[in-house]
Amino acid sequence: MNTYDLIMKKRDGLILDKEEITYMVDGFTKGEIPDYQMAAFLMAVYFRGMNDKETTMLTMAMADSGDRLDLSAINGVKVDKHSTGGVGDKTSLIIGPILASLGVPVAKMSGRGLGHTGGTIDKLEGIPGFQTSISEEAFIRQVNETGLAIVGQTANLAPADKKIYALRDVTATVDNISLIAASIMSKKLAAGADAIVLDVKVGSGAFMKTLEDARSLAKTMVAIGTLAGKHTIAVITDMNEPLGNAVGNILEVEEAAECLKGNGEARLMEVSKTLASHMLLASGKAFSVEQAEEQVEQAITSGSAFAKMKEFVTAQGGDSSYLDEPSKFEKAKYKRVITGKSIFLSREESSEWTEAYLASCNNQEIGMASMVLGGGRRTKDSVIDLTVGIRLFKHLGDIIKDTDIVAELYGNDEQKLDEAEKRFIMAYTLSKENNFKNRIVYDVITSD
Amino acid sequence: MNTYDLIMKKRDGLILDKEEITYMVDGFTKGEIPDYQMAAFLMAVYFRGMNDKETTMLTMAMADSGDRLDLSAINGVKVDKHSTGGVGDKTSLIIGPILASLGVPVAKMSGRGLGHTGGTIDKLEGIPGFQTSISEEAFIRQVNETGLAIVGQTANLAPADKKIYALRDVTATVDNISLIAASIMSKKLAAGADAIVLDVKVGSGAFMKTLEDARSLAKTMVAIGTLAGKHTIAVITDMNEPLGNAVGNILEVEEAAECLKGNGEARLMEVSKTLASHMLLASGKAFSVEQAEEQVEQAITSGSAFAKMKEFVTAQGGDSSYLDEPSKFEKAKYKRVITGKSIFLSREESSEWTEAYLASCNNQEIGMASMVLGGGRRTKDSVIDLTVGIRLFKHLGDIIKDTDIVAELYGNDEQKLDEAEKRFIMAYTLSKENNFKNRIVYDVITSD
Repeated sequence: MNTYDLIMKKRDGLILDKEEITYMVDGFTKGEIPDYQMAAFLMAVYFRGMNDKETTMLTMAMADSGDRLDLSAINGVKVDKHSTGGVGDKTSLIIGPILASLGVPVAKMSGRGLGHTGGTIDKLEGIPGFQTSISEEAFIRQVNETGLAIVGQTANLAPADKKIYALRDVTATVDNISLIAASIMSKKLAAGADAIVLDVKVGSGAFMKTLEDARSLAKTMVAIGTLAGKHTIAVITDMNEPLGNAVGNILEVEEAAECLKGNGEARLMEVSKTLASHMLLASGKAFSVEQAEEQVEQAITSGSAFAKMKEFVTAQGGDSSYLDEPSKFEKAKYKRVITGKSIFLSREESSEWTEAYLASCNNQEIGMASMVLGGGRRTKDSVIDLTVGIRLFKHLGDIIKDTDIVAELYGNDEQKLDEAEKRFIMAYTLSKENNFKNRIVYDVITSD
Repeated sequence: MNTYDLIMKKRDGLILDKEEITYMVDGFTKGEIPDYQMAAFLMAVYFRGMNDKETTMLTMAMADSGDRLDLSAINGVKVDKHSTGGVGDKTSLIIGPILASLGVPVAKMSGRGLGHTGGTIDKLEGIPGFQTSISEEAFIRQVNETGLAIVGQTANLAPADKKIYALRDVTATVDNISLIAASIMSKKLAAGADAIVLDVKVGSGAFMKTLEDARSLAKTMVAIGTLAGKHTIAVITDMNEPLGNAVGNILEVEEAAECLKGNGEARLMEVSKTLASHMLLASGKAFSVEQAEEQVEQAITSGSAFAKMKEFVTAQGGDSSYLDEPSKFEKAKYKRVITGKSIFLSREESSEWTEAYLASCNNQEIGMASMVLGGGRRTKDSVIDLTVGIRLFKHLGDIIKDTDIVAELYGNDEQKLDEAEKRFIMAYTLSKENNFKNRIVYDVITSD
């Protein structure tokens, strides 16, 4: 077997077998296959694609390139969840406590990642005292005792993915369903759960812009998980506007706590409950979607999910009193209020208006406004400002009057606030009529 | 402008402009664009192709990456010729003297290359005393005095091509018409001639296997040359069997001399005369193909072309008496005679036959037989054995009897002769009927 022949084989649209794909992944990870041959191979994959079997082989080879987490010391069926990412996505903070309160063990190892806000563990670090670096032993002990632990990634999970992703990132070979699916699923498989629930985001604030692409990615990932012997389902959810009312790290922790107190924003709650229900079903603790939904609802209304959230935060060293009294959280220095009037005045055609509907938004620009404020990482060395962010008071389809507060931006730098305000305001389009048909959960993809 | 965007642009099938293509070529040649980005770019070009304008821009950028030969000190219209290569192709040795004897200056700088036999300058080194390394000044002086000089490449011609080709060679991106055309034409443009005649070979012994591919390559190269302001034409000729009766370095010099003495094999003469006529026409020394053909014929029958060959060899330090008496040339130690019977016996179905037609051959295998004997270079460090090779007595379409001599193999190593004999014998297919329709000149491609 040699690299040249495998590049040519994929270039010519032929199917690679397990040995061939493993040869490419292992050779590249070990540095035996040079970057330039892998780059040509990835571009050939971009054009020719891979079938589900090839994609699964690629995923398995990547998952096997480093450690595989051993969660066998945790009692029960371990269910993992992954979101393809979007603006204001704090569902992990909501779902984790719900599931743990229902007896499903949640052992989550999270990377920090790049994006509009930090990752789940960045957000949790906004709670004073919260520790995200604990040993693997302490991690497993906590899951067995509390039912929930969320820690920073310590193990060497899927190093092939890191190396391949870095190369894709500079060779315009990121946008391929097989490569995206293998990247996500290799890390999930290495993370050791028994079942996987995927939240595939679609819309202007997501990586997948069309429902067709999202469905294709979801189907591919479900096929991979299933072929790898894991119970896997995917939920396709909307990302055409931020999820919930908060974008930012501490702001999102506050919002997650409010959700578990029963004060959650409707769309955010629908996504969280849908995901939680499917995870409950996958764990075997419920036997129908209806039964699962009922249990999830009950966990929230009874207060047991919120109690579990506090227990988990305490177990990891955090001061859970902040969750009871969010006013204690550290706040950004400046607040910028965005009214309906500021949006109407920002463009000529609406400068005289006194009311209009929020017709659509470029959600990526709202994410960029959060990034500009300092809430996210541009590069892996960026330092996140946990206090900054955006609080939304209006959603797509809402009517706004000139005197209404649409949003508040929080920042520690007036210049950055100026730029963020401009981006935020221009992200929206207005309409005199309400022709809005945004949905929240588009589809659930299962293996059958 | 940045490399990532240009890879993506080509990946998405968009057209690149001159600045963008020059940025890629210059950046890569200077080492500013890494191999892995160029590899991804080349694979994108493989899939998306380039139009004639892009291909010309690529060619120009590559031609400009090093020295451009200045032939202005040579009087007259300089016409260069390039062959895409094949088995037994010694036309340069025949055409050069013909043109020089008709007053067309031939200033040829040749690389050594890889292949079944050496390049033109390797072959010439078979003549005792012949010097292929002379200064640029001496080279130009000789062309002005003798009309013909053929030397090894000294100038730094198209270094971008060398670097890009080396990368294509290990990333399965060689087989693309635009990249092949740019590679050939960049060197031709840098070599400084006023007009270019291309011999595009097609068949089992050529890089282009189908007439369609050959025509496409020819048209692309003619378009490039024309857009670059050079009078350019291409002739498409057959390479489904070796050209002429000799394959090997000294053997081919002998055959070239025989051709100029009027004893040339028919197909070889037809290709040589066609190319010479078009070069004569391009030089402005003839005004119609018919007139050019007549002059070329005259140059051979009058003996003036052969006299010019000797004059040129003498001017470059060679002993031209060898051309008069080829028996003086150094010979290989062993001769292996291939009869009709050895071919008949080599396969079951013909083992009882006493005669058959040579129906077709895998010409690449005949080239490999020459390579195995030591006549060609496998890698750029291989040392060529100038004495070895193959002499053919039969061609496709000929009837062979069991007692006929089909070929003689010349070698200095019995084991290598065994392997070469096996390859040679198995290269042919036989037929009881003569259904052979091989042609020699398929087409002439001009810019209009």
